[in-house]
Amino acid sequence: MVKETGRLTIPSDQDFLAETQQLIAQWGADAIRDSDGTKLDTALKQLSVKLYSTYFVARGYNDFVEKHPETIQELYLLSDRVAATEPEVTIPFMAHYFNQQIRPNYHDDPHTYWEVIDRTTGIVVPTTDWTLLPDADTVTVHHAVPYHEYTVSFLAELIWDPTEMYNHLTNHWGDVPHQVPFDVRYPVAQEFMQNTLRQWLAANPEIDVVRFTTFFYHFTLVFDNEEREKFVDWLGYGGTVSVPALKAFEQVKGYRLRPEDFVDAGYYNSSYRVPSQHYRDYIDFVARFVADQAKILVDLVHDAGKEAMMFLGDNWIGTEPYGPYFKDIGLDAVVGSVGNATTLRLISDIPHVKYTEGRFLPYFFPDVFHAGGDPIPEAKTNWLTARRAIMRQPVDRIGYGGYLKLAAQFPEFVDYVTHVADEFRDIYSKIHGVKPYAGLTVGVLNAWGKLRTWQPFIVAHGKWYKQAYSYEGVLEALAGQAVNVRFLSFADVAAGIPEDIDVLINVGGAGTAFSGGAAWQDPVLVARIRAWVAAGHGFVGIGEPTAIPGTYAGRTFQLADVLGVDQEVGFSLSTDKYQPTPVDDHFLTHGLTMPLNYGESTHNIYAFPETAVIASSAHEVYLTSHEYGAGRGVYLAGLPFSPQNANLLLRMLYWAAKREDTFQTWYANNPETEVAAYPAAGWYAVLNNTQAPQETTVYTTGGHQTTVQLNPEEIRWERIDHEHKG
Amino acid sequence: MVKETGRLTIPSDQDFLAETQQLIAQWGADAIRDSDGTKLDTALKQLSVKLYSTYFVARGYNDFVEKHPETIQELYLLSDRVAATEPEVTIPFMAHYFNQQIRPNYHDDPHTYWEVIDRTTGIVVPTTDWTLLPDADTVTVHHAVPYHEYTVSFLAELIWDPTEMYNHLTNHWGDVPHQVPFDVRYPVAQEFMQNTLRQWLAANPEIDVVRFTTFFYHFTLVFDNEEREKFVDWLGYGGTVSVPALKAFEQVKGYRLRPEDFVDAGYYNSSYRVPSQHYRDYIDFVARFVADQAKILVDLVHDAGKEAMMFLGDNWIGTEPYGPYFKDIGLDAVVGSVGNATTLRLISDIPHVKYTEGRFLPYFFPDVFHAGGDPIPEAKTNWLTARRAIMRQPVDRIGYGGYLKLAAQFPEFVDYVTHVADEFRDIYSKIHGVKPYAGLTVGVLNAWGKLRTWQPFIVAHGKWYKQAYSYEGVLEALAGQAVNVRFLSFADVAAGIPEDIDVLINVGGAGTAFSGGAAWQDPVLVARIRAWVAAGHGFVGIGEPTAIPGTYAGRTFQLADVLGVDQEVGFSLSTDKYQPTPVDDHFLTHGLTMPLNYGESTHNIYAFPETAVIASSAHEVYLTSHEYGAGRGVYLAGLPFSPQNANLLLRMLYWAAKREDTFQTWYANNPETEVAAYPAAGWYAVLNNTQAPQETTVYTTGGHQTTVQLNPEEIRWERIDHEHKG
Repeated sequence: MVKETGRLTIPSDQDFLAETQQLIAQWGADAIRDSDGTKLDTALKQLSVKLYSTYFVARGYNDFVEKHPETIQELYLLSDRVAATEPEVTIPFMAHYFNQQIRPNYHDDPHTYWEVIDRTTGIVVPTTDWTLLPDADTVTVHHAVPYHEYTVSFLAELIWDPTEMYNHLTNHWGDVPHQVPFDVRYPVAQEFMQNTLRQWLAANPEIDVVRFTTFFYHFTLVFDNEEREKFVDWLGYGGTVSVPALKAFEQVKGYRLRPEDFVDAGYYNSSYRVPSQHYRDYIDFVARFVADQAKILVDLVHDAGKEAMMFLGDNWIGTEPYGPYFKDIGLDAVVGSVGNATTLRLISDIPHVKYTEGRFLPYFFPDVFHAGGDPIPEAKTNWLTARRAIMRQPVDRIGYGGYLKLAAQFPEFVDYVTHVADEFRDIYSKIHGVKPYAGLTVGVLNAWGKLRTWQPFIVAHGKWYKQAYSYEGVLEALAGQAVNVRFLSFADVAAGIPEDIDVLINVGGAGTAFSGGAAWQDPVLVARIRAWVAAGHGFVGIGEPTAIPGTYAGRTFQLADVLGVDQEVGFSLSTDKYQPTPVDDHFLTHGLTMPLNYGESTHNIYAFPETAVIASSAHEVYLTSHEYGAGRGVYLAGLPFSPQNANLLLRMLYWAAKREDTFQTWYANNPETEVAAYPAAGWYAVLNNTQAPQETTVYTTGGHQTTVQLNPEEIRWERIDHEHKG
Repeated sequence: MVKETGRLTIPSDQDFLAETQQLIAQWGADAIRDSDGTKLDTALKQLSVKLYSTYFVARGYNDFVEKHPETIQELYLLSDRVAATEPEVTIPFMAHYFNQQIRPNYHDDPHTYWEVIDRTTGIVVPTTDWTLLPDADTVTVHHAVPYHEYTVSFLAELIWDPTEMYNHLTNHWGDVPHQVPFDVRYPVAQEFMQNTLRQWLAANPEIDVVRFTTFFYHFTLVFDNEEREKFVDWLGYGGTVSVPALKAFEQVKGYRLRPEDFVDAGYYNSSYRVPSQHYRDYIDFVARFVADQAKILVDLVHDAGKEAMMFLGDNWIGTEPYGPYFKDIGLDAVVGSVGNATTLRLISDIPHVKYTEGRFLPYFFPDVFHAGGDPIPEAKTNWLTARRAIMRQPVDRIGYGGYLKLAAQFPEFVDYVTHVADEFRDIYSKIHGVKPYAGLTVGVLNAWGKLRTWQPFIVAHGKWYKQAYSYEGVLEALAGQAVNVRFLSFADVAAGIPEDIDVLINVGGAGTAFSGGAAWQDPVLVARIRAWVAAGHGFVGIGEPTAIPGTYAGRTFQLADVLGVDQEVGFSLSTDKYQPTPVDDHFLTHGLTMPLNYGESTHNIYAFPETAVIASSAHEVYLTSHEYGAGRGVYLAGLPFSPQNANLLLRMLYWAAKREDTFQTWYANNPETEVAAYPAAGWYAVLNNTQAPQETTVYTTGGHQTTVQLNPEEIRWERIDHEHKG
């Protein structure tokens, strides 16, 4: 059997041709990319591999920006809240901002484009009641009310590209000019950008793939006066605004946006906020624009006979890979960084591209690849966590980044990459284009729906948050499980729950976009779900599902009647709660080690009398099941990711859908192992997700079961024979 | 020295004259009372003690009620929430109610006085859209929206006095007629009640004190169809309603109340709910009526040459001892059950009576006083916890209840009561009428203010609640500490913070009446407090102080700027929080054992950069201090009662008020001990609050300190000499 090659992109390095050739052969690589800090060696062009070149669209052209300073990118920022102590209060609105990154926009009339707000009343201060002192970067409010807090929402220029700033400060680049990003909103910038690309394409005939890093607008990343991160939102549209954008928005949408629509009382439309209609409109407006402009560039790339790939990150804002305009861009490929199963699926599920590529860890950088360092543990964890998701929906290629020379100094790591590349290609060859077995179809229900497919709970890509990890575990579990996953918005569900959905999941903290907040005051939504569950479907709530912070209409959880639990926020202490006797033995926890791990957990949840309590303590419940008509509601207090919790979630889904009789189908009972089956291809695989040997009982179909011994990390492929087909 | 006697009430028993005489002598008792299940033996009349007789005003007169069934007491109840599954839905509104206690009122037109509500929309169903089937106790809603939830708010007769019902069911009284309470709202009932009392007074010339148990309306106590407590609110006005009351209210207040004003979406105006203006008006209306009617009875008692005492409990609703009309009743005394320091102060602080009396534990009942039982531990705990409060504001008398014969069988207990009575009289003789030293004046700030003095967080008297204990500790600490305590409402503070207040405390869960909920959206309130703190005062927040559930105007805690902390509810995760380095050594925790106990604690609190963090974990803070102008804000995550936590609270108060330099004044450094000083009387006392020996350093004035060894439970009295006066 000829060993398969390809589907692997590796970084290049300077003066490293022979070794690169050797690694290409060993790894079976078929593409070479440049990275931050490396350029493609012209000698590489003689190799029979594709060449990727990183391409920056809107940064690194300071000459242009100097000629057209009006095109500098902008964002709305909120000052500190300053309490007046007398009828005149001065707000140094640049306080705590980094003046090398941020510069107030004084050329567009501040009295037109800025807003001063009395935050204690919410009232906008009339423009006649405040004066600006540009030399001091201060606003003085007159006729202030003592001990009210005032803020200034100001339009500011982004005079340093956030990624370049981060790298500069981290690596102490010193006296190197800062890259000032320009805004393609301006026709002169569009023209420059297109001409620049045309020239570059002509000048770089050897490049096969233009890797846009990325397009026009960086996710929001603002530093503070101590040169530290002050605000970061990987999904934030902060840096997309400008006076022409505001004017165009008004023309397209028929109304004018206020600064407050951007600064959002200081929350800046975090994706945890239930998005306002204004913010939804703005996203739509920017995404349409980005798609239009990106398409022009992609067409130029195609005209030059090259492929267009976009990096999922950095200046990716507005591309919205799961939005309505992404397909119009015409990209060939998307590449993104893989941190776990969720991020793998975030890349691999992207529609309307010819292929997707996942960049794996570790990056070949000296922080890991140094004398005494060991890159293998990170590589193994990364591969094993992502592999679960690849079994559901593979990326089409994998890759690495950094300095190839560094990796080459670690022969065991080189061997491990060989193993990963071979295993990836083997998986891909078997399952690419084959629909894996899925026992259920799950709808993840929140305010964002499809637009934020695999993106809920992300604040900064890959960063852990106390308020997120107990919910993110749900996505991480689902990303590698034998279920179909769809992301549905409240509007989707209110309009009619899609036929194929078996179970809806609502997971998150009260009042957030993920739990839903005020959406649950919509009678159409709640009645629709009740009827659907009563007709025999399942509703899974995790954390504070369907919650209105505080209370609404006598409930905190608006679907308390479906879930069979509610949260005691203090108002119903007078009503006795006779907590049902916990169930001794229940399908939901069969084989699991108690107590379960709820992460941050959710407190003060009580069960209704007819609810089955499966896990509880003296004064609150954690895991329950409730019959509602012909369907079920299942509640859990929190689900940080762990193999056992992933198993628990799968049980909850099957139980809620009343499919527990089919649970043991293409299933392995050891939570450290999982089964992926491809009946159409005649394969099934048993995965050992750990670095230790595992024994597991594998259930195929028709009640057949076998006990399997797996080596560490093993993926055991078996043919589906007649017997297994039951 | 002649041993003092008196100030002690003991229960009586049948055929127990000689022994009673002996105990009167040993204990120095000067009053005898009957109890539930005992009657005063006529032989007792020869003793030279006062006789108390329990008197029930509105229960135990079934003959009257049978003649005047329209006077039966009533309440508004809410049915279960029933989801329609088709356009017609039938609600069995008596489901889960106890039909021996509750009977629907069908004689006042239900279509006028009941309400059917679509809880999914909040819309009241037109009376033309529902029909009533009295024989089945059902309401059928027509034109219902499928999968909306419907409720019936119905007027019901209370056909069994709740206390008598409880005793009946608990003691299995069997075929004994149920006492049906009547409503003094009806003139015929007033006349009957007054005549009955007149006759009783004439027939009982030997009685010295009429102990009203109590007046007209029982606190809300409703049982379920399994004869268990279903709803209990010691402060609830549920049982005060009637059609005449509704009509009178409309006349007095100028608008009509709805059933929803009573059932309150099922929360029934729990004192945890921010009270609506309608409910405040209703309390005022009932309290005015109760005072008027009670005054008539009290006048009759006085005319008969007797004293009028009221029991603080059972049918006490509307008396409102801290309300504006209580003084009009003209009572001589109030007696109440003492469970801890807070309940002692609840009794002893009541104004406008000649004396107060605390009934101590244990009750002389067989549950404790049986062969092998030991009543002493409960007695000791009860006395030691209450004694702290007595040192601040003594009740004028103490007492016990139950069967005297039972207690007499426990000679060591008899001796302990002797000790308690002697110690109480000794304390009383030294400090009665003397203002104790108070280093500070503290205002407890919530929606209720003075009306609920010492009553916040109570649901059922003496019952522990998970959602209350971490806040109740604040009151329990304050009740025995060397500070003046005032209860202030938001309206009080918005109108101007009283001159004498040094520190405000806001303690409770977000959205409750104790934290305040929407009150904090009042710009006048927040500006007033900010200005006041900035001028050099202190603000202490415990739990979720000043919180709007979810968020408002960019904050969860509306005085986050004063406290220097806010709660992360998910919306500001994008903003980096650089948690200040915890302070190594701080006044607030000097001498305390770490970690502190926050009870249920409060989660996701983060500190602002300039805030001093005194206790924290990796991702949240628990105890902080923040300078605001010339004043301070201090935050704590929760304060269940413990001696150490009481000490911590005292430190927080002094620190917030910037009086930490005077903290060691009349102060003992061992938290198990406390100092009470009475400069005007020339005494100070060092209390050992435990049943173990304690060593403590006592700070008097002017920096003087001595080390004191205390016996278990000891109270050490010392004269204040010149030296100590510094």
